[in-house]
Amino acid sequence: MDIYSTVRVNVGSGYDVTIGRGIIDCCGQLLSGLLSTRRAAVVTDSNVQPLYLERVVRSLEADGFTVTSFAFEAGELSKNIATLGKILEFFAQSGLTRKDCAIALGGGVVGDITGFAAGCYMRGIDYIQMPTTMLAAIDSSVGGKTAIDLETGKNLAGLFIQPRAVLCDVDCMSTLSHEIYADGLAEAVKAGILNDPELFALFERGEAADKPEIVIDRCVRYKAGVVEQDEKETGLRKMLNLGHTPAHAIEKLSDYHIPHGRAVAMGLGIMARASAKRGCCSTECAARISRALACCGLPDNTDYAPDDMAAVAASDKKRTAGGVSVVLIRDIGDCIFEEIDLEHISGLFADGLEQE
Amino acid sequence: MDIYSTVRVNVGSGYDVTIGRGIIDCCGQLLSGLLSTRRAAVVTDSNVQPLYLERVVRSLEADGFTVTSFAFEAGELSKNIATLGKILEFFAQSGLTRKDCAIALGGGVVGDITGFAAGCYMRGIDYIQMPTTMLAAIDSSVGGKTAIDLETGKNLAGLFIQPRAVLCDVDCMSTLSHEIYADGLAEAVKAGILNDPELFALFERGEAADKPEIVIDRCVRYKAGVVEQDEKETGLRKMLNLGHTPAHAIEKLSDYHIPHGRAVAMGLGIMARASAKRGCCSTECAARISRALACCGLPDNTDYAPDDMAAVAASDKKRTAGGVSVVLIRDIGDCIFEEIDLEHISGLFADGLEQE
Repeated sequence: MDIYSTVRVNVGSGYDVTIGRGIIDCCGQLLSGLLSTRRAAVVTDSNVQPLYLERVVRSLEADGFTVTSFAFEAGELSKNIATLGKILEFFAQSGLTRKDCAIALGGGVVGDITGFAAGCYMRGIDYIQMPTTMLAAIDSSVGGKTAIDLETGKNLAGLFIQPRAVLCDVDCMSTLSHEIYADGLAEAVKAGILNDPELFALFERGEAADKPEIVIDRCVRYKAGVVEQDEKETGLRKMLNLGHTPAHAIEKLSDYHIPHGRAVAMGLGIMARASAKRGCCSTECAARISRALACCGLPDNTDYAPDDMAAVAASDKKRTAGGVSVVLIRDIGDCIFEEIDLEHISGLFADGLEQE
Repeated sequence: MDIYSTVRVNVGSGYDVTIGRGIIDCCGQLLSGLLSTRRAAVVTDSNVQPLYLERVVRSLEADGFTVTSFAFEAGELSKNIATLGKILEFFAQSGLTRKDCAIALGGGVVGDITGFAAGCYMRGIDYIQMPTTMLAAIDSSVGGKTAIDLETGKNLAGLFIQPRAVLCDVDCMSTLSHEIYADGLAEAVKAGILNDPELFALFERGEAADKPEIVIDRCVRYKAGVVEQDEKETGLRKMLNLGHTPAHAIEKLSDYHIPHGRAVAMGLGIMARASAKRGCCSTECAARISRALACCGLPDNTDYAPDDMAAVAASDKKRTAGGVSVVLIRDIGDCIFEEIDLEHISGLFADGLEQE
């Protein structure tokens, strides 16, 4: 095992994000030092199960844990109340008590639904995030936002509930297809635009693929800082929604065939051009963002019509009484938060969709 | 409207329990002063709907609220994940935002499941408890324990989540059948035994039925004090489980045909006799408890065998690694907490089941 860094997240009772290589095979060792219980229930999905489940269980058992496991069908379609119910019954049938622990082994969907289940099983037990995708490593595993989708909309039910620890094995990232890896980088490019010109430069130079530790470490540090200041997303944390208003509209219009990361990349391109058009940032800044996305193999625009996207944004859950919250770009590392009237959203999208 | 008392509960951001008569028809007035939103979603069940729903909606609308409502089939069998999902979809279809409010109008089941749904809809919105049974008024509406049942066991999933306010209309108590009213008094007798000899004397004198305000007020004050000191049930709050270890076993053995309050009454009788048998309290004290229960029209014993009850208790969720937590009685108003080994539970129950 080779630990690259440990990032402390001071939210709730606080927890560590451990980033390194070889963690999958040593998770028992790491967790036995942290937890008083020796009973753990691992939740994963049908994609991750054949890759890592056996190794995780073997490592836990070697360190004295009694382990049960459950895998659900991979995919966003499983992120619903029926799967939540199955996971809760799995915890109960495993005999988990209030002092035992759940482990989420997988990508964003696994983390979201397992965290939610752990947060309400017996009114809350500990859970550990073991992210296996880039997106989960840098986005879902820090911040404590867990959720399921309802029939009426995505992520409409969930909890703010912090994990007990995050164990991030960078080796998992090298088993990802180029497409899934790139998908995860979109949130990292966003973190660069929001706060970290040096990180952003890694993407511009096309060096991100070779240095997953650095990308994960810097993104986790940034997000941890934001979440520490605003756990429940009442203010600052809304900055993390940069690009997400158009991204959510694109995802929904595509009936979720366009994955989250690619939609975020499109959203970043759109918000960059819209910011430039309004004189908020330079056209060169917007062009740099497009180039950085291209270097990651990510798109920066969509063909959907601004009116269609605006209609979806109007029904988005982040809407307040009068308008929609968006984040505009002033420069790489410098963004601002703005409330836009519903009737002006279509114009904003139209500006952003227009290529120079 | 005639307000008898307002009890402050200092848990979370704090909230008031308003106890009085005529509240159902004035809830809009009370809530419009408290809430900034003017959108509310009322959840109730098929028993309560014909009695109070229209009056509540009319009062809310008169004070400017936009109101939607949803009623599920009454009964403990509805307290499951399917109903939780329906309530969440109802909230979403009502267009509730993070700033809006859910109202639980009904007994314990309505309060438990609506509180849980509100606690996870959009990761938590405000909710108001409007208890319509004695049991809900004195037990479920204070403390913030919400739950649903799983197939594997009762109350296995839920949240600690405090309401924004509790509006308790004492007039509702007079529409209850004698049996349902008595069922609610069991938890009040428990509160008297734990902490309040004066309240206990009301039951001994058979005066409880005429003074629901006093019973509710004193029980709410006591429970609020306990919950303030121990929101997450790590210590003191376990005292509230007096009689509940045998009660849960009795409920389960009866396949939940014996209602919660009657099972608690049986549990109180059993723990009283078991406490006397061990020299913890006098036999006169145990006899007083039996008499007070009888005055409320409640049973004080069961025919189930101690071994069967012990087997159920062993699988109860409150069990820790080595044993079961029980509360023993030393005198009216003086109880102690004790950890009992699993193998001694059957003997404890046997002592308590034996009539003098």
